[in-house]
Amino acid sequence: MNSFGNIFRTTIFGESHGPAIGIVIDGCPPGIAVDPEHFIPDLARRQSGGRGTTKRHEADLPEILSGVFNGFATGAPITLVTRNSDRISSDYDEFKNIPRPGHADFVAGVKYSGFSDMRGSGHFSGRITWGLVAAGVVAKKILPGTQVNAKLISAGGSVNIEEAVEKAIAANDSIGGIIECRIQNPPSGLGEPFFYSFESALSHLIFSIPAIKGIEFGIGFAAAMMKGSEHNDPFIDRSGKTATNNAGGINGGITNGNEIVFRVVVKPTSSTGADQETFDFKGGKMTTLRVKGRHDTCIALRIPVIVEAAAAIALADLFLTDRGIHGKREVL
Amino acid sequence: MNSFGNIFRTTIFGESHGPAIGIVIDGCPPGIAVDPEHFIPDLARRQSGGRGTTKRHEADLPEILSGVFNGFATGAPITLVTRNSDRISSDYDEFKNIPRPGHADFVAGVKYSGFSDMRGSGHFSGRITWGLVAAGVVAKKILPGTQVNAKLISAGGSVNIEEAVEKAIAANDSIGGIIECRIQNPPSGLGEPFFYSFESALSHLIFSIPAIKGIEFGIGFAAAMMKGSEHNDPFIDRSGKTATNNAGGINGGITNGNEIVFRVVVKPTSSTGADQETFDFKGGKMTTLRVKGRHDTCIALRIPVIVEAAAAIALADLFLTDRGIHGKREVL
Amino acid sequence: MNSFGNIFRTTIFGESHGPAIGIVIDGCPPGIAVDPEHFIPDLARRQSGGRGTTKRHEADLPEILSGVFNGFATGAPITLVTRNSDRISSDYDEFKNIPRPGHADFVAGVKYSGFSDMRGSGHFSGRITWGLVAAGVVAKKILPGTQVNAKLISAGGSVNIEEAVEKAIAANDSIGGIIECRIQNPPSGLGEPFFYSFESALSHLIFSIPAIKGIEFGIGFAAAMMKGSEHNDPFIDRSGKTATNNAGGINGGITNGNEIVFRVVVKPTSSTGADQETFDFKGGKMTTLRVKGRHDTCIALRIPVIVEAAAAIALADLFLTDRGIHGKREVL
Amino acid sequence: MNSFGNIFRTTIFGESHGPAIGIVIDGCPPGIAVDPEHFIPDLARRQSGGRGTTKRHEADLPEILSGVFNGFATGAPITLVTRNSDRISSDYDEFKNIPRPGHADFVAGVKYSGFSDMRGSGHFSGRITWGLVAAGVVAKKILPGTQVNAKLISAGGSVNIEEAVEKAIAANDSIGGIIECRIQNPPSGLGEPFFYSFESALSHLIFSIPAIKGIEFGIGFAAAMMKGSEHNDPFIDRSGKTATNNAGGINGGITNGNEIVFRVVVKPTSSTGADQETFDFKGGKMTTLRVKGRHDTCIALRIPVIVEAAAAIALADLFLTDRGIHGKREVL
Repeated sequence: MNSFGNIFRTTIFGESHGPAIGIVIDGCPPGIAVDPEHFIPDLARRQSGGRGTTKRHEADLPEILSGVFNGFATGAPITLVTRNSDRISSDYDEFKNIPRPGHADFVAGVKYSGFSDMRGSGHFSGRITWGLVAAGVVAKKILPGTQVNAKLISAGGSVNIEEAVEKAIAANDSIGGIIECRIQNPPSGLGEPFFYSFESALSHLIFSIPAIKGIEFGIGFAAAMMKGSEHNDPFIDRSGKTATNNAGGINGGITNGNEIVFRVVVKPTSSTGADQETFDFKGGKMTTLRVKGRHDTCIALRIPVIVEAAAAIALADLFLTDRGIHGKREVL
Repeated sequence: MNSFGNIFRTTIFGESHGPAIGIVIDGCPPGIAVDPEHFIPDLARRQSGGRGTTKRHEADLPEILSGVFNGFATGAPITLVTRNSDRISSDYDEFKNIPRPGHADFVAGVKYSGFSDMRGSGHFSGRITWGLVAAGVVAKKILPGTQVNAKLISAGGSVNIEEAVEKAIAANDSIGGIIECRIQNPPSGLGEPFFYSFESALSHLIFSIPAIKGIEFGIGFAAAMMKGSEHNDPFIDRSGKTATNNAGGINGGITNGNEIVFRVVVKPTSSTGADQETFDFKGGKMTTLRVKGRHDTCIALRIPVIVEAAAAIALADLFLTDRGIHGKREVL
Repeated sequence: MNSFGNIFRTTIFGESHGPAIGIVIDGCPPGIAVDPEHFIPDLARRQSGGRGTTKRHEADLPEILSGVFNGFATGAPITLVTRNSDRISSDYDEFKNIPRPGHADFVAGVKYSGFSDMRGSGHFSGRITWGLVAAGVVAKKILPGTQVNAKLISAGGSVNIEEAVEKAIAANDSIGGIIECRIQNPPSGLGEPFFYSFESALSHLIFSIPAIKGIEFGIGFAAAMMKGSEHNDPFIDRSGKTATNNAGGINGGITNGNEIVFRVVVKPTSSTGADQETFDFKGGKMTTLRVKGRHDTCIALRIPVIVEAAAAIALADLFLTDRGIHGKREVL
Repeated sequence: MNSFGNIFRTTIFGESHGPAIGIVIDGCPPGIAVDPEHFIPDLARRQSGGRGTTKRHEADLPEILSGVFNGFATGAPITLVTRNSDRISSDYDEFKNIPRPGHADFVAGVKYSGFSDMRGSGHFSGRITWGLVAAGVVAKKILPGTQVNAKLISAGGSVNIEEAVEKAIAANDSIGGIIECRIQNPPSGLGEPFFYSFESALSHLIFSIPAIKGIEFGIGFAAAMMKGSEHNDPFIDRSGKTATNNAGGINGGITNGNEIVFRVVVKPTSSTGADQETFDFKGGKMTTLRVKGRHDTCIALRIPVIVEAAAAIALADLFLTDRGIHGKREVL
């Protein structure tokens, strides 16, 4: 389903090669300043261009169809769209017969009975995350005192990211990476256990982003090797500040006011220039597939701003939900 | 919030030391056999008893308050409860003054303005997962051809789990672990991108389980070090079977019919017998805290069946949602 | 589905002759006083006893299973149940063969494939509204300055209600009625158009109550005969008070601070002592059905408190949702 | 909130004088034929033009932004928009000072803190129902064997509708009306009690339509004057057909397969040419307001197709939800 959120609720739509992509943002408090220019920095970070990303260039500035008047959110749903102007549809029919390994070609065929628009991967395309980033720009304004920053901390297993990308380009292959996101000055008290813990809300959004296959909070998987006496974060002052932050700023599914830290893994994009032995569903036998056309060597380079958006949306929805139940708190 | 699911929707309630804990299951198809005896195996797996788990023993057999008649689900909501008979309330007031590091004491105080019932950790207690396991038993019946199996594959950083537990008991400390879950014979086509991908639904439920701090699908975080040509899983036959399974049975957020594989990390339980230096919020200075009473040395020993339950609930909800949108498919 | 509400979310369960009926209330702000005694007045109003209602007597005092500690809501879900102690199961098998006209017997058979528990009408029974009334008691505490009052204003087409009931008892038949509900001192600004207008939220809940077949707000159906210049309610002071109240306190789906007024129609209960010619599904021909056992002559006598509960729940959810989006307002 | 539906979920957006209005339809089964031409008949019925409706003329043909490929729904969200080309913004500032009686001016000011776009009534405008009608066109395709037909059966209290409109035009006033909707050949078994009864789902949608102030099912409010023996609808054959249809095709919140019948009341539009005595919030005293500009004499003339859309959307969502829970039934 294509909506998420309890109060700050986003509805995403669009296909890679359809007329437009976009998002509807419901539950945004009125009075927040919204201007097309505000979206440029984050949308530019998401866009292609650098070494290791595809060459698609588009005027991705959002058109605001609704919900903004005189530069401010009105309280009605905000609709942001952008046209798909740069569409070179590869011959998708081939991929019906020989679904690309690692792609959604096969599952889309099974699930949508052959009706899905798979040009440029359609609704499965990373391009759809444009809407997420756009909604993230609005979400970040809900909590102006909180900063969300994500960055790629390794690619292809190496912290020397540029070098790893160059090697992969030379090999005509793709590589994955790890992104770390840090949220500074978060409100404490956000998260609604049992079923809408901070981690639940965030991971739900994060796993909507194509190519993400894992998430860990705080010290994460390394906690499996620790003792409780090591893992526990002792409090050191009245604000709830802790000496260590193995919990990543979250106890019992609720933010404790310390920096929120999480990491996600981005798999190497499935599109590679390499030959692949795979099944020909029409021919009924194995075959060699070589996928032509542009691809991202390291899609992970473009994902940090999308991860930030998911985090900001989760924060916004949890903040507004908490405010609904508890009213405005002194401490916030 | 304490409900989850689009069609197969569970609502969980209860506190560790309140009168009862339980769960309401809505959207269960009528005609499924439900008997109190069916719950015994999974509830027993969850219960305490073995080395490294706490000594609490309770007759955790569910009472069925509604939704079952003559041994079959009726289509009305199924309510399952169990009484909390074994309640030794530790003096919780101390933890208001000196919140235990790693526990929910501090955040509960901030969020619920001092009104939460924190005896035995209240609604934050691992005991609440009883309801999840009970709902999992029902959920597993929705897809009888699919098997969900989770097990602890390492504890305290070691695959020799018994030895690791004994060492931790000797050290009067707690240890974490990693649980792997494998789902065999899953239907293909489950998952509703963009916002209700298979991974989104599952992780949302998984991060409701206390103490879980990370999840990865298929090859998971190791994908960051792989090339696309290595990570892609080539198809080898008409059913969609793949030669490798780095994607963990999920492409584009939708199951591809191969085995679903994921792992979660369980942090060491915060309750340890060790002294801890932490802040005394009443006294306004650092102090030494020693928490008395029973605790789990390795809570991860009890969590595999809870992980299975979360997976079965996600599968059930995604299956019924898919069936609603698409009708019954030949292939399922 | 058996849950309703965006933030103040109730989940209802139970069958007339099952072990228990109840409700789970999620999203209740912590700190609200909740005691079993608080439920007595409203539950007593709902209960049977007076002339024209059935003779069933039960200790319907709620047991609080969760969410309340030391007499106050904790912020965790509140679960309220009561046992079904007075169960005389009529022979329901007869109604499978000869579904009672006006009852849910036929549709339950179609929908639940014969698995529903139809003893005493099961989950369709008016008895299930116990949970709604119980949740209403809690909901009324969320807006202590607002009073919700409903009463039966006509029965069997007559405003002389006692007389109408006596005549129906004498005729061994049942009669319907009209209930009017007035909400005094409501907050202004409640209602979330487009799809969660005040009327949408309220009518959604109201039509969950068995036997209600219509609702109208303010002057209601009579508006069809009015001119705009007559129907419009002129403002007369700065608070938004209007000279007339044809709109029933709601403009554009949002409360305007004036008294909220609505009426609902309750059909005569389907159970009557009269002979009925209807189809024998087993025998394949028309037959004469006489339903034995107790029935309500005028079920509408018991419904005002249920209507109040529905209104209070709608108000609570809309208030908390509004507070989430907009924060605490000076004017509230 | 601006989304509705469990599976067939619509998200509506737009303001009367903003750039565009539209709707996103999620959960539409793939393979349904969708073409811009299909929308013309229903959108034309909704559009202004006849005697008693405003003169606004717009090319309201939808642009399909997503979710349709080669003329068929793909399974991804369908986004339909239309531009607001004919915008003459009246001076809205006046209405901030002197809110129009019966309009949303006052409540919008209270709720949205002055930020709402009230040009042409903004998000409160009847124009927003364009999206509802467009979604209704798609919803009607989900149940091709079921016909939904609504018509105006009285205006200004008279069944001679043309005459009533002419009289109102002559009086420079507006009039209300009553619309009856009949749904032929509905599937039986639709409706999900307790909280998502057929009447709940339908009334929720119906009360999203501006100007509707009441709804009744079957014999409706007249049931208050009937005896049970009169109101009960006897079954007359194996299909569940009933001799009478006082219940309007719904028992216990679930369709019984007979014709579904309901009526709604449309209040006279608040905009009239008449002088109105009302409060001047800036001046702090009563004043005479005369609203200039075009208005609908009888807005009810345009609403039947909107009522049909609401009914079709409710049917679609209840049908897909039922199919999810129960699978495909022989009888459907």
